[in-house]
Amino acid sequence: MRAVLLVCLLAGLAHADLFTAIADLQHMLGAEKDVTTIIDQYIEAERARLDDLRRYAHEYVHRNAHAESVGPEFVTNPINAYLLIKRLTTEWKKVENIMLNNKASTFLKNITDNRVRSEVKFPGEEDLSGAATALLRLQDTYSLDTLDLSNGIIGGEKVSNKLSGHDTFEVGRSAYNQKDYYHCLMWMQVALVKIENENPPTIEEWEILEYLAYSLYQQGNVRRALSLTKRLAKIAPNHPRAKGNVKWYEDMLQGKDM
Amino acid sequence: MRAVLLVCLLAGLAHADLFTAIADLQHMLGAEKDVTTIIDQYIEAERARLDDLRRYAHEYVHRNAHAESVGPEFVTNPINAYLLIKRLTTEWKKVENIMLNNKASTFLKNITDNRVRSEVKFPGEEDLSGAATALLRLQDTYSLDTLDLSNGIIGGEKVSNKLSGHDTFEVGRSAYNQKDYYHCLMWMQVALVKIENENPPTIEEWEILEYLAYSLYQQGNVRRALSLTKRLAKIAPNHPRAKGNVKWYEDMLQGKDM
Repeated sequence: MRAVLLVCLLAGLAHADLFTAIADLQHMLGAEKDVTTIIDQYIEAERARLDDLRRYAHEYVHRNAHAESVGPEFVTNPINAYLLIKRLTTEWKKVENIMLNNKASTFLKNITDNRVRSEVKFPGEEDLSGAATALLRLQDTYSLDTLDLSNGIIGGEKVSNKLSGHDTFEVGRSAYNQKDYYHCLMWMQVALVKIENENPPTIEEWEILEYLAYSLYQQGNVRRALSLTKRLAKIAPNHPRAKGNVKWYEDMLQGKDM
Repeated sequence: MRAVLLVCLLAGLAHADLFTAIADLQHMLGAEKDVTTIIDQYIEAERARLDDLRRYAHEYVHRNAHAESVGPEFVTNPINAYLLIKRLTTEWKKVENIMLNNKASTFLKNITDNRVRSEVKFPGEEDLSGAATALLRLQDTYSLDTLDLSNGIIGGEKVSNKLSGHDTFEVGRSAYNQKDYYHCLMWMQVALVKIENENPPTIEEWEILEYLAYSLYQQGNVRRALSLTKRLAKIAPNHPRAKGNVKWYEDMLQGKDM
């Protein structure tokens, strides 16, 4: 009963765009059924390609080994010399071609064609961002705890699957893209907590740290931003901006006493 | 004894370039040993990629099926809507990336680097052509039968492995490239005989027919060139030149009575 009421409330929050997206999604689920079949066919084709490769490559190497075992006089026979050179040119080319001939593009085109035929709009980045924004609006309206919401818990009830570290990170990133550092901060903190229990983590810690540090800075906490950026520089020593940002935050702290 | 004498005679035929090529070949055989290992590593990496793909793709489809089984109200829950849209965008992208991420180029580069390190010259098209020419010169000098020679038989003795249909075809093609239609004709005829006993054939009949017909025409046998080109047009109806060539030979036969 409470869950039904909740869904009505949630639906009330969604704006027109999201409703269109929801209708599209409902249609699309049916259209995505063929994807497994196509991917299974692709895997089958790739396995056949690898079997071909193994056969050709082993024959190629086996014949070279035979030639070597005969010794240097092997190639003074012009028929042997011809066969060996042909193997090292024409037949090696064939091995290379089998290696390079990944048929993924053809299979992906089949999937795209199926989607076009089904006449449903496939969601894009803007829809993902819209869905994340709807979650944040819901959170504000009902003052929901970020960790609870990310675990699919609303009003003490489990209403959906929980979000992974990466799912949580993406909600934070949507907030960041809208310069909403308040929500970005909360969701990135939860993302850090989530990946602690993931093996392997669905998102790398250093990716979270950069967003988290910048949001802390934007919310006025330069000292904590500096501390997290130092950790970022330590765990990702080749990060293009980490060291520069450490200096930037340090200069800022020296310039003004916070 | 006879075989040793033969090898000396054969060696006497080879010119300086071929000797360089032979010395290179002897060095190279050792250097090609690593190829199997690298290709086996590639096959292993590709199998791991396909296992990854199967896991991701099945999870992708499994979750979609779950959403569909719940029914249209599934996506009116904003957490579900967000997770579904994320799956259809970010996670689908991951499936696509795994499909497209064939690592062949990296492994081929390893093989090329090994070859460079071994400091031996790898043979090219011109060496293949040189080795084929050496065979033809041998054939002329000792008046050897084409079929015997292609079976590794010289002076009644088996002195090497036999040539496949494709090996034989390539000797004919080398002759063709030097406008030596006399030898091209003989070797293409043997290539046709060879593929009759190959399953699958190492070269397609239609590929042989075009060279064979043109060599017959060059040797003055327009009637037989026409007959083979008609067969070519029949077995390869989409061949870009077959139909035009049939007309060309027909016009020629009408113009002059052969």
